[in-house]
Amino acid sequence: MATLEAILATIDKNIDASTQRLFDLLRIPSVSTDPAYTKECERAADWLVRELQGLGYSAESRPTPGHPIVVGHANAKRKDAPHLLFYGHYDVQPPDPLELWKTEPFAPRLQQGDGTQEIVARGASDDKGQLMTFVEACRAFEANGGLPCNVTFLFEGEEETGSPSLPEFLAANKAELSEPALALVCDTGMWNATTPGITIMLRGLVQEEVILRGASHDLHSGMFGGPVVNPIHVLAKIIGELHTEDGEVALPGFYDGVPELPEDIAAQWRELDFDEAAFLEGIGLSQVGGEAGRGVIEQIWARPTCDVNGIVGGYTGKGSKTVLPAQASAKFSFRLVGTQNPTKIVEKFHAFVRERLPVDVTAEFISHGASGAINLPFGSEALKRARRALADEWGVEAALTGCGGSIPIVGAFKRDLGMDALMIGFGLEDDRIHSPNEKYSLTSFHKGTRSWARVLAALAA
Amino acid sequence: MATLEAILATIDKNIDASTQRLFDLLRIPSVSTDPAYTKECERAADWLVRELQGLGYSAESRPTPGHPIVVGHANAKRKDAPHLLFYGHYDVQPPDPLELWKTEPFAPRLQQGDGTQEIVARGASDDKGQLMTFVEACRAFEANGGLPCNVTFLFEGEEETGSPSLPEFLAANKAELSEPALALVCDTGMWNATTPGITIMLRGLVQEEVILRGASHDLHSGMFGGPVVNPIHVLAKIIGELHTEDGEVALPGFYDGVPELPEDIAAQWRELDFDEAAFLEGIGLSQVGGEAGRGVIEQIWARPTCDVNGIVGGYTGKGSKTVLPAQASAKFSFRLVGTQNPTKIVEKFHAFVRERLPVDVTAEFISHGASGAINLPFGSEALKRARRALADEWGVEAALTGCGGSIPIVGAFKRDLGMDALMIGFGLEDDRIHSPNEKYSLTSFHKGTRSWARVLAALAA
Repeated sequence: MATLEAILATIDKNIDASTQRLFDLLRIPSVSTDPAYTKECERAADWLVRELQGLGYSAESRPTPGHPIVVGHANAKRKDAPHLLFYGHYDVQPPDPLELWKTEPFAPRLQQGDGTQEIVARGASDDKGQLMTFVEACRAFEANGGLPCNVTFLFEGEEETGSPSLPEFLAANKAELSEPALALVCDTGMWNATTPGITIMLRGLVQEEVILRGASHDLHSGMFGGPVVNPIHVLAKIIGELHTEDGEVALPGFYDGVPELPEDIAAQWRELDFDEAAFLEGIGLSQVGGEAGRGVIEQIWARPTCDVNGIVGGYTGKGSKTVLPAQASAKFSFRLVGTQNPTKIVEKFHAFVRERLPVDVTAEFISHGASGAINLPFGSEALKRARRALADEWGVEAALTGCGGSIPIVGAFKRDLGMDALMIGFGLEDDRIHSPNEKYSLTSFHKGTRSWARVLAALAA
Repeated sequence: MATLEAILATIDKNIDASTQRLFDLLRIPSVSTDPAYTKECERAADWLVRELQGLGYSAESRPTPGHPIVVGHANAKRKDAPHLLFYGHYDVQPPDPLELWKTEPFAPRLQQGDGTQEIVARGASDDKGQLMTFVEACRAFEANGGLPCNVTFLFEGEEETGSPSLPEFLAANKAELSEPALALVCDTGMWNATTPGITIMLRGLVQEEVILRGASHDLHSGMFGGPVVNPIHVLAKIIGELHTEDGEVALPGFYDGVPELPEDIAAQWRELDFDEAAFLEGIGLSQVGGEAGRGVIEQIWARPTCDVNGIVGGYTGKGSKTVLPAQASAKFSFRLVGTQNPTKIVEKFHAFVRERLPVDVTAEFISHGASGAINLPFGSEALKRARRALADEWGVEAALTGCGGSIPIVGAFKRDLGMDALMIGFGLEDDRIHSPNEKYSLTSFHKGTRSWARVLAALAA
């Protein structure tokens, strides 16, 4: 078996080729939420299959009711090596609003960033760049005698739409997929550009769309305006009542299962060098919004939310139209923490809306997924080894952090496969994921690849 | 001079050809609010110029900063004949939502309706069909020795966007356009399918668009959700607060200048055979909304409103997107009555919005026009003669009604030209103007043409 130093040297030597391979993947517009891109999702899955096969691993793109899931298997040289499951996703968010991109979202390029080159493209950070750090680490091992661990690869294509096909897929392939002892999940971030992070708390996510309908058809607002109910007004009033003056979510019982932050966690977070003013300035704001009296870190990592992600009704083109719309709709999302029950949140939300419907207005609900929060156990042996490996690469201790985003797969691993997950990723806060001009630092990509090499070696030791 | 009977017989004989000419005009998609249809608006204006010239009248399409205005002049045979100004508009509302049209909106067709044929197309009723009733009445006079009145024709192409170019045009052409003693305006409706109407009250219209902006760019609702202000929430709360629980508009001072209905008008309206339940059923509703304790007729004709005509923010495509939007916008309209001051309403509205903006949220306002309400004097000689002419055609007295829609030109005629307007039109309540599958009854078109012949003869007598 080659030394870790040899493997790291291989990574360093091949970084340009690794970057070009990532560019190939970024060129595929695998937008999962829009049916127009179904074929592109299939292309991305096939591309990953070929990459794994090129490393000598078995790999297949397996159909699901949605987009395909890529499963691959690689064997370590050592018979008694540990078995790990590596998870990533190849799907990306829609690139809109397109007019705000400086260059084409699916034409990746390098630009000079703050002290490092940056890879710019939709999916550069979320999650194709992160996914490829692991694949490129494996490639370096293969060039030096083989992997130190057995690895099962699981790449899905529906993460951005709440992973609807995954639970059934895990259940149907439980024997095959539950063999590894630990999952490695790369869909998270560094604490900052120089400090790696391991995520130990994840918020859950409930997504609900509501369509309100009033009159049987659109009406002239002059000839009918006054006695005719306007669904936009009804929807707006409901949204306006969803938060209290103090910024709390007003659904009755919403905070059932929301714990106050334990003091040991609170203390560690206080020691993090988080600059609230700089955070706000970076996104064009000056003041902490949301729940009165709670800071940014606490709100994003450990507090639940309700946000409207989209709203539409009536005429939205240029100019004006004197129309009384027959319908209005909005997409809501709830971020959950602690033991908040996603099913109950959905029920509470539906009741909240229904109680506020005037006569002659009906509500249709469309669910876009529901998953609870995750809290990982401290102090496992794997966590200790991973922290040490990251400290060796970055020269500083990894922060143990929360994450405001959901990674439904981590919940599914625990629930369906009985498997804990080590969440290590190299994304940065300013990567503009889900926004125009998404980027991934070349340092994240390069040292991320080196980090995975060290973690694999550490877990195999 | 031919007898009125001969002129009416000519109209009856030529009704098919008249309908085909209207179809030609309906085929031109002259959508004024959308810059993509600018050329089509010019085409519609040119078409009208050719029609008037074909009748032997002088006519021109005159440029404005917006869409052209058609001006024509026709002389009566008699030297001392009265001079009238006939107004109509050739522009139409956008046809969307297109998927709800049974056939193409700009491919006019006849369908069998309730007891009459119906002309189906965008603009059939509002206002191309109505406009052509007058042109076809003139044509019948020309086939029988000429017009009994001098007529100035004024066809504009921006009625559906609040007639922005018209005031300046009237001012610039005041000498030419203020010569007629009375305006005839055809953009109104019948009381019902068998009872003609003359409109004596018109609501005013203020249209304001608001764009709220928060963070500098769209953000991931997981990675940022909680402490970051959401402009959709802010906009929704403002909209939710614009009405009281009793359905009144909550802008302070909004009801300044709103009179209670005079008893004589109220009595006449009570005698109208208006079926509230049937009205509501026709648009898929069961209950009178809006201001508590006020009926449909009173609310639409004599009460002011505030309606959101459109709202949009965040992701509105298929599926879900976990985005915290950087902006949200809505189009508002206010219908005004009595002496409500449009300028003050705009100021009150801006103040109402600004007072409700949290730190870090800004508002941009875009005005789409503002005009006050109109109340026409009872009992003028022209009104008496027109009522008699309509009674002769329809066999019943014309109802004197209000109208919930605005006709800014009527205010401009009064203000800029010192001219009253006789508002006579043959639209029906179920014409679905501004909605998919707009139609105009062939009876309205035919007997409307006959009605104008009778009104012209009566005013000349």
